[in-house]
Amino acid sequence: MSAATLFPQHVIARKRDGHALGRDEIAAFVRGATDGSWTDYQLSAMLMAIFLRGMNAAETAHYTDAMMHSGVVADLARVKQPKSDKHSTGGVGDKVSLHLAPMVAACGIAVPMISGRGLGHTGGTLDKLEAIPGFRVDLPLDRYAGQIGKIGLCLIGQTAELAPADKKLYALRDVTATVECIPLICGSILAKKLAEGIDTLVLDVKFGRGAFMKDKAGAKALARALVSVATAMGKPTRAVLTAMHEPLGCAVGNALEVAESIDCLRGRGPADTMAVTFALGEQMLLLAKVAKTKAAARQRLEAVVTSGAALEKFRAMIAAQGGDARVIDDPSRLPRAKFQVPLPAPRAGFVRDVDAMGVALAALRLGAGRARAEDKIDPAVGASGLVKIGERVEKSVPLCVIHANDEKALAEAKAMLTRAIVIGSAKRTPPKLVDEIIG
Amino acid sequence: MSAATLFPQHVIARKRDGHALGRDEIAAFVRGATDGSWTDYQLSAMLMAIFLRGMNAAETAHYTDAMMHSGVVADLARVKQPKSDKHSTGGVGDKVSLHLAPMVAACGIAVPMISGRGLGHTGGTLDKLEAIPGFRVDLPLDRYAGQIGKIGLCLIGQTAELAPADKKLYALRDVTATVECIPLICGSILAKKLAEGIDTLVLDVKFGRGAFMKDKAGAKALARALVSVATAMGKPTRAVLTAMHEPLGCAVGNALEVAESIDCLRGRGPADTMAVTFALGEQMLLLAKVAKTKAAARQRLEAVVTSGAALEKFRAMIAAQGGDARVIDDPSRLPRAKFQVPLPAPRAGFVRDVDAMGVALAALRLGAGRARAEDKIDPAVGASGLVKIGERVEKSVPLCVIHANDEKALAEAKAMLTRAIVIGSAKRTPPKLVDEIIG
Repeated sequence: MSAATLFPQHVIARKRDGHALGRDEIAAFVRGATDGSWTDYQLSAMLMAIFLRGMNAAETAHYTDAMMHSGVVADLARVKQPKSDKHSTGGVGDKVSLHLAPMVAACGIAVPMISGRGLGHTGGTLDKLEAIPGFRVDLPLDRYAGQIGKIGLCLIGQTAELAPADKKLYALRDVTATVECIPLICGSILAKKLAEGIDTLVLDVKFGRGAFMKDKAGAKALARALVSVATAMGKPTRAVLTAMHEPLGCAVGNALEVAESIDCLRGRGPADTMAVTFALGEQMLLLAKVAKTKAAARQRLEAVVTSGAALEKFRAMIAAQGGDARVIDDPSRLPRAKFQVPLPAPRAGFVRDVDAMGVALAALRLGAGRARAEDKIDPAVGASGLVKIGERVEKSVPLCVIHANDEKALAEAKAMLTRAIVIGSAKRTPPKLVDEIIG
Repeated sequence: MSAATLFPQHVIARKRDGHALGRDEIAAFVRGATDGSWTDYQLSAMLMAIFLRGMNAAETAHYTDAMMHSGVVADLARVKQPKSDKHSTGGVGDKVSLHLAPMVAACGIAVPMISGRGLGHTGGTLDKLEAIPGFRVDLPLDRYAGQIGKIGLCLIGQTAELAPADKKLYALRDVTATVECIPLICGSILAKKLAEGIDTLVLDVKFGRGAFMKDKAGAKALARALVSVATAMGKPTRAVLTAMHEPLGCAVGNALEVAESIDCLRGRGPADTMAVTFALGEQMLLLAKVAKTKAAARQRLEAVVTSGAALEKFRAMIAAQGGDARVIDDPSRLPRAKFQVPLPAPRAGFVRDVDAMGVALAALRLGAGRARAEDKIDPAVGASGLVKIGERVEKSVPLCVIHANDEKALAEAKAMLTRAIVIGSAKRTPPKLVDEIIG
């Protein structure tokens, strides 16, 4: 039976009854989302049926393939370097893409990176980049391909041409309680990533309070599904499981995170951020066969930081995308908030906890993120100089500096951060950050 | 938490995760369907979650109550007789409402009957009544109440004021593969029936090839759910399980079934049709306390047929609703098809099978029913004089008479009926018709 003759309600009924769908049935569903031949209510009934009945590996691969081909797949055939990208499932203070992409590009890998905006408690790479005055993330695909060929990296937002079925289905999932479903997440992430034109892919799958997946078992299952589907589709992929209990690094907020990424590129990034950066970068170099061993990959990544080559890649990208590259040497050119207020430690002791979700919600309250897709964000606000779990603090030293443009928001964020950062008497060893490599 | 503050996606997520919903959550869902505060895609995601996760007895009762109160509940306080209705889950040739309502009304029970139209293979009571020239089924609720007070019965269609949430959800269920779900069916049937203003209810729950529920276990589960929910809501209810393997009676098609119902009211209805009619009527009289024993109820029902009182009730109802009551004495005033063609028996033998679904699809092909809600039906067409399972036939005698207005449809229906009616050498005992009383 051709996909065109499949009635939506019959395909929905088959999944509802727990059958594995064939390639043609999945193609009809995804085409229905793209061309409107399935109504929104049929799509959402199907999404719920998939949520509750699941999809096996073959179905997930068909789904991902159909989603990827619902729009244009970027043609990077003229780029001769190995093409690799990194994707994170999202966390608090996760600015890794900003400095990892130029580091890897400086190692000779082309990085075609199509990113998303932040929604809810996690920040988005695009929002962070847009904190750089003039930086444009809305380049058309031909300019994107051209820039990758020329300087080895380009970071843009999802265009209307790329995986339009995902755009449609993602919006529906958000309002129909069908987000947390591994096959659907797989399809959504991989359709966009595979449409970028990559050869290999490295995933940062986070777990913990500040992550999308709260428990490690769920994150591991997602990582395994992502790796097996992408690999089956001819794109060698690995996933790094990383913990997201406290924020990554010491800065949360768009301009503040850009400044921290510049620190990373200057070799003075926070230890936790660099540990995740190197873990991901190593896998990118290994998969792209630019390095033979993990040690060699690490050496290479450290070398492009030390030499300044990675920083120059970042500078070239900012300039190529219309941004003010002077922010690299003079971070005071980044947007600055009206108030910079230290949060003093209420007592001496050890940092027992920095709750990533609490910090994220404080940043959201300050205006650093979006509660709804249509909200505008404030690039200047957030928290910097955050203490880390296990650190020794004296009474009254700052636990962080709050950056705010509004006194009421400042007061509320202060109360939220006071609850999020817990000081106690006993030292606590920070939880293991880079947990496991899958694939 | 008040229902107004419940976000649709949170309520959906709770059902998705298998929790029992509270009254306020169910009220928010049904209100969302009524006032549009839930989008269609949120409603359909919820319907699929309910389909796959189920609802317990308390949830089903809350749901039914919310559906019933989504619109007006007919006020029949001024009608002093006991008020009872009968509802059938639908079958082929099921014209029982047409003659049972006047029979029961003639026994002193008020019958407020709000019926549906046919869709798919089953016919609708409204469509049958509309085969009577001039008969109006679109009376407003005040005229409906007035007529019940005056003559003891009124058969109308669902108005926009009655259970509007059901109208909305039923339309969505039909196109999202969420029809065959007992709690949803319960809510849909009972919300409309309880909004009629009844005191007691008798259900004809059919099972078999020509029924909505194919197997008896499913029909029994549905019957039990209907009886327990309606009874818990203060409306004593019983269900009669009846078989629907071959068509009920000898006529299928709207005007043809009206003529057969008139035969029933004259005491010369087919045995199977009268068996179901008496079984249902007995329970109506018992529940309404108009008779004390089944035998007494049966006697009473037979008496109103013999005396002609039931036929006069039917006549009064036709006249009150604008119909041409002369059809009772002169059924040739009913619409007649251009062609009346006997289907000869291919051989002598016994009727081994009359497949209700095959007959229904032949009638549908002739124009007696609707494949889609917007289709117009032809009141004249169908099949009459259908043989019954177990009957002895000689070669060339008619197995039925096909009534058609179109030669192509006639030829196709003839082929379909030839396949549906099976003649063999061995006699077959017809399957048990009235199977069990639930409640």
